[in-house]
Amino acid sequence: MNIDGKPYRTIWLGEDGSSAEIIDQTKLPFALDVVPLRTLDDAAHAISSMQVRGAPLIGATAAYGVALAMRADASDDGLSRACETLAGTRPTAVNLRWALDQMKAALGDVPQGARVAAAFARAGEICDEDVEACRKIGEHGVGLIRAHAEKKAGEPVNILTHCNAGWLATVDWGTALAPIYRAHDEGLAVHVWVDETRPRNQGASLTAFELGAHGVPHTIIADNTGGHLMQAGLVDLCIVGTDRTTANGDVANKIGTYLKALAAKDNGVQFFVALPSSTIDWTLADGRAIPIEERDAREVTHMTGQLPDGSVATVEIVPKGSPAANYAFDVTPARLVTGFITDCGITTGSAGGLAMLYPEHRAKAA
Amino acid sequence: MNIDGKPYRTIWLGEDGSSAEIIDQTKLPFALDVVPLRTLDDAAHAISSMQVRGAPLIGATAAYGVALAMRADASDDGLSRACETLAGTRPTAVNLRWALDQMKAALGDVPQGARVAAAFARAGEICDEDVEACRKIGEHGVGLIRAHAEKKAGEPVNILTHCNAGWLATVDWGTALAPIYRAHDEGLAVHVWVDETRPRNQGASLTAFELGAHGVPHTIIADNTGGHLMQAGLVDLCIVGTDRTTANGDVANKIGTYLKALAAKDNGVQFFVALPSSTIDWTLADGRAIPIEERDAREVTHMTGQLPDGSVATVEIVPKGSPAANYAFDVTPARLVTGFITDCGITTGSAGGLAMLYPEHRAKAA
Repeated sequence: MNIDGKPYRTIWLGEDGSSAEIIDQTKLPFALDVVPLRTLDDAAHAISSMQVRGAPLIGATAAYGVALAMRADASDDGLSRACETLAGTRPTAVNLRWALDQMKAALGDVPQGARVAAAFARAGEICDEDVEACRKIGEHGVGLIRAHAEKKAGEPVNILTHCNAGWLATVDWGTALAPIYRAHDEGLAVHVWVDETRPRNQGASLTAFELGAHGVPHTIIADNTGGHLMQAGLVDLCIVGTDRTTANGDVANKIGTYLKALAAKDNGVQFFVALPSSTIDWTLADGRAIPIEERDAREVTHMTGQLPDGSVATVEIVPKGSPAANYAFDVTPARLVTGFITDCGITTGSAGGLAMLYPEHRAKAA
Repeated sequence: MNIDGKPYRTIWLGEDGSSAEIIDQTKLPFALDVVPLRTLDDAAHAISSMQVRGAPLIGATAAYGVALAMRADASDDGLSRACETLAGTRPTAVNLRWALDQMKAALGDVPQGARVAAAFARAGEICDEDVEACRKIGEHGVGLIRAHAEKKAGEPVNILTHCNAGWLATVDWGTALAPIYRAHDEGLAVHVWVDETRPRNQGASLTAFELGAHGVPHTIIADNTGGHLMQAGLVDLCIVGTDRTTANGDVANKIGTYLKALAAKDNGVQFFVALPSSTIDWTLADGRAIPIEERDAREVTHMTGQLPDGSVATVEIVPKGSPAANYAFDVTPARLVTGFITDCGITTGSAGGLAMLYPEHRAKAA
């Protein structure tokens, strides 16, 4: 998507053809820093320090990390060590392991002398495949927005989203935001209510940044606000992403998603979840088995922002001695989900709906 | 309640007998500053600058403001001017006008020479009446907590609250927190989940401060978290306050209350609203007529806290150019309210429930 009119991806091949470049997301929204990745260590650090985040982007960065490692040591040992190093950068991202498996499969039978070129080629393909999957989510989802637009006579379609499931979490387009970008680019009037998404503020920082940079009208709100907006008829539909969706359609996503889904149900507002097929966990029957990560309380007790002089500072916002808890995700039951927007099409929020789109898994489950 | 073992109210008569003292709540939780009010202007400034906030405390401060004004000019004109000045300090607080009416009624027939003494006496009574109403809320509500405690075999009863409806919002005890203080003081094991309450953070700053200072175990959570906690069985009951409750039992309270009430209903968790009788607006049939205040977007886009060097600073937490909206309240429909805890007793969350406690209003409504 665009930043001030210039198209960007979150990761791309450097001009020298043998490095990768990323947007340092730890600096957003206060600075747009492009960082070159020249070595395996650069790539590993980019993932572990969250310069890049979002499961698809983590996978793409790991793929480039293997390619960078091949430049230093293209032996089988070098390949193994690179995958081992990268696998340890983040504990839970499924796409990370998937991307490393892809790279091992692509390079295993290639002679050492040809591995660098093959690795960069496969990393580039992984990026392009992710872009294509997200583009298709947009293509399938835009019709839902268009249907509202047709009833609104030029008034903007109001869409509420939570956390960041935009192009910054993928290579381009995003998941939940892909249909919104598509609608905006087609000239449909859209306006996005951006949940701040405490405690890490990915909505107020990343989602607001990328929507603003691409020119999509939006308004930041406290996470407490969505219910009132729905009661007041100010939300036409909700679209969120997901970190893991189980076979029955239960949706694990950023903490607070469940509360918005409850409000949507209570007010007859559509609640859609956008995801690539790879995010469906067919091994889990329902969401009760999903472990909920507890993160550092400091994300609740401290807040980073910009001082009036433009410098970035972190302030403590709670009384000394008051403990805090930081649950990172919650599970929205399938009964609250209107439907799923996937790269393979749209379906209802239920086990039957997902199985209809993915008959090969229905067969396995049966 | 106590601060580090020493009992406090939020406002009290100064040792000289002719001033009032308050805790400057704009400095909490980072500093405990006691500020003397010696003149009408001091009192007006304390209210308008939010050194004191919370409807009952605003009323009490206005009462002392009239008393302080009488010291300078005890004429009828002086009384009128004082009430006019104080009435203009905050736009919406019902208790402010109520307290000024009380003072006018108490002083109108009193000779000028006796007005200072009469004014201080009535201001003190208004404070004591508020303390007594809140104490009764605690007395009526503690039984609800005790009932859970009896089933938990010494494990703490987990209570979720939103915003600040504690003693800092009243003269002492608070409304939602009154039953919790009562339970704690009786030796029942309680633990409070404190919603941060964005955007003004009254939970993370004021509620956490007062619970910690009195020694009540608590944990601060992002506002997004309550739904997950209820799904996980980690909340036994919710108790919140209210800014206005209509005759049918609809509850206007801090934005986000509605989302917690939805989650409570979805998980079979009790959801109680604590309030003095004066907060019931018998003139409104239901909550649809309650206007929802929109406040300065800066409360969403900026955050105040403490830098590592101990100084207090405000940081901007959103991208330049991203607008924000700041709705201050939402309305929780009576169907989501388990019951009301009032100074007159406990009743179910419905028009019939409130009318049962207050038959004089049932007569009027019929």
